[in-house]
Amino acid sequence: MSQQDSQGITAPLGFRAAGLHCGIKKAGLLDLALILSERSGPIAGLFTTNRVVAAPVILDRLHLRRGRGRAILVNSGNANACTGRSGMAAARKTAALVAQRLRSPIHEVFVGSTGVIGRALPVDRIIDALPELFDRLSRTGGARAARAILTTDLKPKSVVRRMRISGRIITIGGMAKGSGMIHPNMATMLGYLTTDAAITQRALRQALVQAVDASFNCISVDGDTSTNDTVLCLANGMAGNRQIREGTPAFRRFARLLTEACEPLALAICRDGEGVTKVVKIEVTGAGSHNQARAVAKTIGTSNLVKTALFGEDANWGRVMAALGRAGVPLNPSKVSVSFGGVPMVRQGVGLGLGAERRIAKVFKHREFTITVGLGAGQHRAHLWTTDLSYDYVRINASYRS
Amino acid sequence: MSQQDSQGITAPLGFRAAGLHCGIKKAGLLDLALILSERSGPIAGLFTTNRVVAAPVILDRLHLRRGRGRAILVNSGNANACTGRSGMAAARKTAALVAQRLRSPIHEVFVGSTGVIGRALPVDRIIDALPELFDRLSRTGGARAARAILTTDLKPKSVVRRMRISGRIITIGGMAKGSGMIHPNMATMLGYLTTDAAITQRALRQALVQAVDASFNCISVDGDTSTNDTVLCLANGMAGNRQIREGTPAFRRFARLLTEACEPLALAICRDGEGVTKVVKIEVTGAGSHNQARAVAKTIGTSNLVKTALFGEDANWGRVMAALGRAGVPLNPSKVSVSFGGVPMVRQGVGLGLGAERRIAKVFKHREFTITVGLGAGQHRAHLWTTDLSYDYVRINASYRS
Repeated sequence: MSQQDSQGITAPLGFRAAGLHCGIKKAGLLDLALILSERSGPIAGLFTTNRVVAAPVILDRLHLRRGRGRAILVNSGNANACTGRSGMAAARKTAALVAQRLRSPIHEVFVGSTGVIGRALPVDRIIDALPELFDRLSRTGGARAARAILTTDLKPKSVVRRMRISGRIITIGGMAKGSGMIHPNMATMLGYLTTDAAITQRALRQALVQAVDASFNCISVDGDTSTNDTVLCLANGMAGNRQIREGTPAFRRFARLLTEACEPLALAICRDGEGVTKVVKIEVTGAGSHNQARAVAKTIGTSNLVKTALFGEDANWGRVMAALGRAGVPLNPSKVSVSFGGVPMVRQGVGLGLGAERRIAKVFKHREFTITVGLGAGQHRAHLWTTDLSYDYVRINASYRS
Repeated sequence: MSQQDSQGITAPLGFRAAGLHCGIKKAGLLDLALILSERSGPIAGLFTTNRVVAAPVILDRLHLRRGRGRAILVNSGNANACTGRSGMAAARKTAALVAQRLRSPIHEVFVGSTGVIGRALPVDRIIDALPELFDRLSRTGGARAARAILTTDLKPKSVVRRMRISGRIITIGGMAKGSGMIHPNMATMLGYLTTDAAITQRALRQALVQAVDASFNCISVDGDTSTNDTVLCLANGMAGNRQIREGTPAFRRFARLLTEACEPLALAICRDGEGVTKVVKIEVTGAGSHNQARAVAKTIGTSNLVKTALFGEDANWGRVMAALGRAGVPLNPSKVSVSFGGVPMVRQGVGLGLGAERRIAKVFKHREFTITVGLGAGQHRAHLWTTDLSYDYVRINASYRS
């Protein structure tokens, strides 16, 4: 992460942010963040596919129907999930108080929570902290906000990307926190993106779908989606560019830039997993459809057997074969090829012997490498970044709350 | 396991078995087993749903089309999977040599393999050992055979069940080895059942489907199905009962007995997992269909977050909620109830507070307990036995082959 990246969500024009300790987490740990735009603008959002959904996600979905946003309030340390009506009331109350200070309609305020499920949100601590949070809002507050949304993450994750559109520099800033799949439960994948681009809500939404599909949706650690996963992108138009509309060259460039902002955040989530010693790209080619390619990549990338072999640096390629065979995708095993870091190990479904195994054993020593699987069934491809399954993963997740 | 159970597959009339060390595994470890019936009889089989299938499974499926069996030859230490044509030739050759000695058609001989994927089966060692293996066949050989099919299992798993049908005592014997899901790859779920019941092949097959569905298909540890999973049931008719046909009271009693033989084998596979410190039953009720109940039980039972919480004795019920929400089953979270060892923790989707959490924390200390999930959506139910995810699971699977 460069110095510039650390500005994150306050890098685009017209955004301020703050982060502080309001008392949900232990003393000294930042646990409350606010992102504020000078003006309201179009907002797009994507949420967890989990059917058990935290109160802030329910509220954000409701507000998103109006399609405009101005502020995002996020707490860490408590997920406000499985908290019933009082959880919804708590989420709504914090949003209402932020809206009141801004003299904005409540539907322009979004909220996010991450942390332990099923405990009442200490809403009074949040309310008491709001005056100071507003006082602290600044053009350089992105860095503190990025720290305030963390749970067990080791490092804050911020990004800034810029490009010129219709003669104006437009900027995208972003911040994210650890994957629910790495630091689960106490833990959710949250991503917040800001931009000063002028863009329609439809175009913003479509660009976000593309960007998330190529980034956050390509990382998977144990397949456990959280009740709180949220990605929001707020655009205030202050760059003064001609408004970006779908289907235009400017849209395609914007969508690419948004993807380029999301990718490093997604990869940082993988790399930052406590207990993670390997980050491995599973690349599936020659599939009959994109969905089939994705299903195979996902099954390999979430197999505990593959993941423990990665941790142990055991070149146990048979586990990759066993995993791809149970992906629920029609395949002809005798057409399958597998290579590790570019070294072929399986051709036409058959292992290439102990010499090849010795060569791939060296690849398994690397901290990052690619496993390429060819299905020989078509032209489609997909990839997924995964991590290993280590002692520390078990330690962190066996004892997090105690 | 009682003394009687240890007779296992040689308990029914007319069965002999043997187990010895032929040289696939380290010196002294049994690695080759033979089950032989005096007479051939109907045989039924169920195999892995994995599309990458080991040579012995391909051969057994072929032989099963004829529906009759007399002998089963099983090696451990090598899976004969991803071994291509030479692997098929090896499987066929060992079956042919057994058939030749018995003067039986080759399709009455079945083979099984379990162990590392992708290494050539040392077929000469198996062939060289066949004379001694036949010499050692005995009416008490079931116990040694049950040891010869093990890989990383700590204990052999055998069972014997008896009942009276049409005035005759009929006996079912069985043996199994560790789940590919617990000791994976090096590891497969193999189950062999023998019976002296007279029964049609159709009835035998139907009874086996029912029994496996209620036993081996109800255990899941990490969702990794093997390339070699096999359950075979061979019936030689020597009890002299009136032949059992589908749809009769005798059939229902036989099917129940077969289920009662498979259940303790399945549970023994869970309990014997290296690294397993907990065996937990996930019971889902009130589902809209049996498949939905099963999907929810499976998603909870294979969640790494739930499994690490079990290991850590962390009463983290929020992870159960998060897991059931991503099962892909339509559900209304506000109708969900969850209890642990009979102690209610979630009602109408909302946690019952710290008092309830303290009570379920005590349940988490037990070595075995039940998690009951009510969906409030219908009348259907399903259950699944799962295990925890421990440091030892990672240790065993990270370093098995080294």
